[in-house]
Amino acid sequence: MSSTTKELVVPIEELRSFVVRSMVAVGTKEDHARDLAELLVSADYRGHYSHGLNRLDMYISEIKEGMTTSGDNEPTILKETVATALVDGNNVLGPVVGKYCIDLAIKKAKDAGIGFVTAKGSNHFGIAGWYSIRAMKQGMLGMAFTNTSPMMVPTRAKERTLGTNPLTLAAQGNHGDEFVLDMATTSVALGKLEMQDRKGEPIPPGWAVDQDGKETRDAKNFHGLLPLGGVEQSSGYKGYGLAMMVEIFCGILSGSSFGPNVRTWKDFDRAANLVDGASEVLVPGDPERKHMELCDNLGGIPYHPNQITYANELAKYFKITPMKLLK
Amino acid sequence: MSSTTKELVVPIEELRSFVVRSMVAVGTKEDHARDLAELLVSADYRGHYSHGLNRLDMYISEIKEGMTTSGDNEPTILKETVATALVDGNNVLGPVVGKYCIDLAIKKAKDAGIGFVTAKGSNHFGIAGWYSIRAMKQGMLGMAFTNTSPMMVPTRAKERTLGTNPLTLAAQGNHGDEFVLDMATTSVALGKLEMQDRKGEPIPPGWAVDQDGKETRDAKNFHGLLPLGGVEQSSGYKGYGLAMMVEIFCGILSGSSFGPNVRTWKDFDRAANLVDGASEVLVPGDPERKHMELCDNLGGIPYHPNQITYANELAKYFKITPMKLLK
Repeated sequence: MSSTTKELVVPIEELRSFVVRSMVAVGTKEDHARDLAELLVSADYRGHYSHGLNRLDMYISEIKEGMTTSGDNEPTILKETVATALVDGNNVLGPVVGKYCIDLAIKKAKDAGIGFVTAKGSNHFGIAGWYSIRAMKQGMLGMAFTNTSPMMVPTRAKERTLGTNPLTLAAQGNHGDEFVLDMATTSVALGKLEMQDRKGEPIPPGWAVDQDGKETRDAKNFHGLLPLGGVEQSSGYKGYGLAMMVEIFCGILSGSSFGPNVRTWKDFDRAANLVDGASEVLVPGDPERKHMELCDNLGGIPYHPNQITYANELAKYFKITPMKLLK
Repeated sequence: MSSTTKELVVPIEELRSFVVRSMVAVGTKEDHARDLAELLVSADYRGHYSHGLNRLDMYISEIKEGMTTSGDNEPTILKETVATALVDGNNVLGPVVGKYCIDLAIKKAKDAGIGFVTAKGSNHFGIAGWYSIRAMKQGMLGMAFTNTSPMMVPTRAKERTLGTNPLTLAAQGNHGDEFVLDMATTSVALGKLEMQDRKGEPIPPGWAVDQDGKETRDAKNFHGLLPLGGVEQSSGYKGYGLAMMVEIFCGILSGSSFGPNVRTWKDFDRAANLVDGASEVLVPGDPERKHMELCDNLGGIPYHPNQITYANELAKYFKITPMKLLK
């Protein structure tokens, strides 16, 4: 958003105070409300309006509808080593859990050189970058990840199976410079697609798929987001792989819930998930497993004859015994 | 490669032995040669032929031309904590350094819950997945990263500035299942593009740029690879950001060299690097810094009037004092 005469300006302290009084009004503890306020203010200040004041009603609803605890709960450590911890958020506001976890990771990193904390029983934690920046401000490389509700349709699939699953890295540069990567592992955020539709423009290539898992340029046919990289030909499976990495760090490692279709891993193989005419849905590592099975069946590794000729020339040149072939 | 009658099969033990005798013939210590052999065999076995026997001549050249030490050098630890270490590879073969580092990280992870090791003075270390799988086989989540020589043209730039900079995560699943993400942060590997050219087919969208930094479909005009995500509209800046993440972990954190145009960071801003007609080249975090400067100048955060109306309605509903605007 650029500053035009139509826009109104809210002082930062006033915005913070408004979020706190709104959350306290629905029963949130004041220190929890302050944690949330800090995060929403930061999002708007950094220009990520979708994750700032715009999200306040979502957090209010979470509390009002009992999805998030507004009582005396606090996050607790279930298990830890000098450098790692498993935290139970005990269903308090996501930003309260997130702040607790990044502060614990920072403390561990100061002691051990690195800290890695994963949480279950948490809720929507806002912009991921807030957490990585918090660690960066302590002179560290800060990272954060979160899985989210399903929105991404994996390569060759047609169901929304993984979230937008963002990852972030913040690193201080020289002379006050900063590197703050904060990205969803889908090709774009849903908001970008909505804006495209509002402008009456077609969806650009690589953004979205329809009910059949086929790339669509028409917002009316939108069913899910493509992973970063778009369709298979432009390596969408890499974004899909990154999203699964985030699920592993956040959902699986913490023992909390993750996208319903990811739950059993093998669900990807179900016929109902397959795009018509496409080959099977894969997870990273599957093609290599197939090749290793082939090698095992053959009793060795198959090579193109040119590769063997090359090896033989090498052997001749260095007076080395050449490779013996199986057949 | 599928197994056809044209292909020749080499038993795995024979392949391993051939690599060892080739490397020993040019002066490599036998245990170092064994480390390399292990890696090349694994690449071919997993079906990544580009990184197996196919690369043997490159390692031989490294030794012969004195780029890599063939003497008595071994990697050494320069600095360490219970969970982290900085290693000097002392210019031995990349796979020797890589194996040393992942084994050190595994040992630290056993002690501290997580281990993170970065190395300088190393060389081409082969497929990244070999290292993550090695940790996975110890019951861990394994990760590995490496920066490489420049091949990726960042979003809005026209010079090759970053490498293909791969990252990998390996995680054991139930019932012998595995998740092995092993991906370059460019949209595709160079080899894929060469194969497309050999088939006489145009380069698919999102793969490559020409000398002017513009997307090209013609292999004759190939200048560099696009980052994962392709052009800016399909979020290529995310792949570019991931490649920089890898540079930070491998080049900057270890104090070793990294892509010459990355070295001073601000090089991106030089006019010579800009695509004609495009706006400035950015690093992750730059747009947010601009927005924060805007807020600082305004004395608060600018909002669309509808956002303020929404906040006022919220305040009214919960009987909260509404936000005071700056203007």
